[in-house]
Amino acid sequence: MIAAIEKAEFLYHQIADKLEKQIEKGVLKSGDKLLSVRQLSKEQGISMSTAYLSYVQLENKGLIEARPKSGYYVRFTPHTCLMISKIEPVKSDIKKISVDEMITMIYKNLTAESVIKFSLAAPGVEFLPAAKLNKAMNEALRKSKYSCLNYENLQGNVLLRKQIARLAFNWGGVITEDDVVTTQGCMEAIVFCLKAITQPGDTVAIDAPNYFGIFHAMQSLGLKVLEIPNHPDTGLDMDYLQRAIEKVKIKACVFVPNFNNPIGSLMPELTKKQLVKLLAEKDIPLIEDDIYGELYFGKQRPKTCKSFDKTGNVLLCSSVSKSLAPGYRVGWVIPGKYKEQLIRIKLIHSCSNATPTQTAIGIFFEKGRYELHLRNLRKALYTNYLKYVRTITNYFPADTKLSQPQGGYVLWVELNKNVNAFELYQKAIEQNISITPGQIFSADARFTNYIRIGFGILYNDEVEKSLKTLGNLIAKLST
Amino acid sequence: MIAAIEKAEFLYHQIADKLEKQIEKGVLKSGDKLLSVRQLSKEQGISMSTAYLSYVQLENKGLIEARPKSGYYVRFTPHTCLMISKIEPVKSDIKKISVDEMITMIYKNLTAESVIKFSLAAPGVEFLPAAKLNKAMNEALRKSKYSCLNYENLQGNVLLRKQIARLAFNWGGVITEDDVVTTQGCMEAIVFCLKAITQPGDTVAIDAPNYFGIFHAMQSLGLKVLEIPNHPDTGLDMDYLQRAIEKVKIKACVFVPNFNNPIGSLMPELTKKQLVKLLAEKDIPLIEDDIYGELYFGKQRPKTCKSFDKTGNVLLCSSVSKSLAPGYRVGWVIPGKYKEQLIRIKLIHSCSNATPTQTAIGIFFEKGRYELHLRNLRKALYTNYLKYVRTITNYFPADTKLSQPQGGYVLWVELNKNVNAFELYQKAIEQNISITPGQIFSADARFTNYIRIGFGILYNDEVEKSLKTLGNLIAKLST
Repeated sequence: MIAAIEKAEFLYHQIADKLEKQIEKGVLKSGDKLLSVRQLSKEQGISMSTAYLSYVQLENKGLIEARPKSGYYVRFTPHTCLMISKIEPVKSDIKKISVDEMITMIYKNLTAESVIKFSLAAPGVEFLPAAKLNKAMNEALRKSKYSCLNYENLQGNVLLRKQIARLAFNWGGVITEDDVVTTQGCMEAIVFCLKAITQPGDTVAIDAPNYFGIFHAMQSLGLKVLEIPNHPDTGLDMDYLQRAIEKVKIKACVFVPNFNNPIGSLMPELTKKQLVKLLAEKDIPLIEDDIYGELYFGKQRPKTCKSFDKTGNVLLCSSVSKSLAPGYRVGWVIPGKYKEQLIRIKLIHSCSNATPTQTAIGIFFEKGRYELHLRNLRKALYTNYLKYVRTITNYFPADTKLSQPQGGYVLWVELNKNVNAFELYQKAIEQNISITPGQIFSADARFTNYIRIGFGILYNDEVEKSLKTLGNLIAKLST
Repeated sequence: MIAAIEKAEFLYHQIADKLEKQIEKGVLKSGDKLLSVRQLSKEQGISMSTAYLSYVQLENKGLIEARPKSGYYVRFTPHTCLMISKIEPVKSDIKKISVDEMITMIYKNLTAESVIKFSLAAPGVEFLPAAKLNKAMNEALRKSKYSCLNYENLQGNVLLRKQIARLAFNWGGVITEDDVVTTQGCMEAIVFCLKAITQPGDTVAIDAPNYFGIFHAMQSLGLKVLEIPNHPDTGLDMDYLQRAIEKVKIKACVFVPNFNNPIGSLMPELTKKQLVKLLAEKDIPLIEDDIYGELYFGKQRPKTCKSFDKTGNVLLCSSVSKSLAPGYRVGWVIPGKYKEQLIRIKLIHSCSNATPTQTAIGIFFEKGRYELHLRNLRKALYTNYLKYVRTITNYFPADTKLSQPQGGYVLWVELNKNVNAFELYQKAIEQNISITPGQIFSADARFTNYIRIGFGILYNDEVEKSLKTLGNLIAKLST
């Protein structure tokens, strides 16, 4: 019996070693699907349990991974993924934001069809359930004779709000439709929250680097921005935040705990709890942007800060723009104790939102199609991510460092110090490749040698070719 | 020959007198359609020309009117339509606006299905081309495999913008799609314009009385409001405006030249020209709200101020919310020389607008269905208006005075000085009737004995009954 066990152990080590070599040599590449346990057992003439143990060994080494209901996949090879350098703390705490011409330029170039848009942090259409969404829209139009014609309920379509409340269960929320206010996408949700709880001249803390749209919105509202460092590996600098609260009157915080854009990091549950507690004690409302929350690579839907909120101090913002239908502009806020203010702001600025799109998304949710779609999207997106990483690792200079996002659409890439990311942007766009230069992710254009690469476009030969071109451009600028 | 002419003259006088008596006695009521000229000639055994002359005589007396391609209709009887009292000029020029609890209350009560909503300034669904709009939406979804899924062009759907440019011809505009920026309804358009050209603390002039949403938007943007009196009969007080410009630094104007809400008045072309010239000289941008412009009772689409704009100083705002599809939230701005600022504001606050609704409206316009629908809507709305006036004249106290709107959805009603309009509102809502008290149409709640009655609900027995109830309530409060 002991001999049999030893033999099995020898066998699965042997199989695992063979597979490891294949991965090292690139025969098996990041994102490739491995044989199922049953197939491996047949192919190698070994028992199912030996085959299983081989995979477990490779999994423990971090070379492959199991994905629920899908099988085993090759992970990216870890030695290519370095730790991103520690970001220097913000030099002066509060900055006047200046208008960024770069952003206008990037947006203008996005309209050209021929450009391959790594600057998007959104899904390619191939990932979206077009036919089923159209079906939901048709159902919306046919609900009654005059469906979708009238002004929608000011707080938002009731069916949609019910479904948002139902889905909240996944992130640990216990709410009803009365707690939800719909908006025209997540950006409008955040702007409304800021308008509801701040006055021009107030200081608002955000995690940095951050989505450039947030800076613009704050500037437009006359707010001062206080950046709290958020590192891909070590996460939000809670000490920094605590010291800042003692020094400056912070009127509100806007954080992206789940898969921050551009870093892709996930705030641990414990930090979320601490953050919510700290801000409740100091009576500082937290605007939580959870737009990427459903797009996790891990095993579970991460919780939100809102799920730890006992005082109604957290305003959760989200939408379907990144996960289902960018063009529908359907978003929402769960504004806690600021609900009345929020509805008032909505009434003033846009009255109600569109009826057809809200109804269609409500129906899509109601039929359970969203959960099904998300399961597929997460798998496809993760595979896509691995392929991008593999290609970048192959073609970018060796000193390139990559973030390890745990969800979402973007890679945060640290380049050689000699590279000016905006210069790279300009050279890349000449080749019809659009990337996002790091400069626009902080108020003081700090991230000069960083770029953000969105991996939302379905991986194909053109993507590979464009990433290769990009790698060559970076190599030239690195010297 | 002379005898024949005299006989004909005698005849048509006779016929006209008979008809006049029928109108006086109420046998023929406001809004009733008269026989066609051919039918009248047959019925009375007179020639076509005699029948025609009878109608011309009644028309000259203001008792009936011809509507293009529709025939002759009884107008409301003029003696019931008094001149509305001259509004006292604004006492103090600039006011701090206070939050109005009335508005919140009115909006809350609007969600109840059982309430008859004279407080709406929008079309009843029966007036809207539901089936054809659904068809347009289906075409939008089927345009290509991934139609309507992606983020829309930031400036707005191109097809829609082209069509808006085409339709501009009707109000005297010569523009291209590049001059148009789409928005989420007209309210968002006006808010974006204000944000693009003002700073908190600036003073903005508006015509008064005015739609209460404008006050709220300005308050929310930290603006001071300067009200320029606008009278149902004498129109915008241009002298007052000129004096105000000399005294106060006005940063922008927001006017509704075509069928102001609540007055329904139409600014004469000459005044429009003068206004545009004056404001261009003083370098004060004019935000022109033309949301009711297509809903004219007269023979021609009224021109806009924008059509006289030679310097790009006029920002025209409109939408389909009042004329086609309230629930679609499709609006636009033609922002003249402020285009870049406007697009920037749009990017910050809402990114792009929804794709499916914009595409559907674009297709509806492209197929020429909008013009067809508008022709029907205008006729139906005017008939509806006449029926409302008839009923109000019958059931409201004799000292009630009515505006004579030349388009749009609303009647501005002056009641006995003893009536407090908000008290009336409260008593009416107990009977499931919602009206809009005059108080909320000015910053200082000046119009205490005025109410606005929307006539957008298709006239029926319930409307009649509710107006009768309202008349009784007013009578009780008048003593």
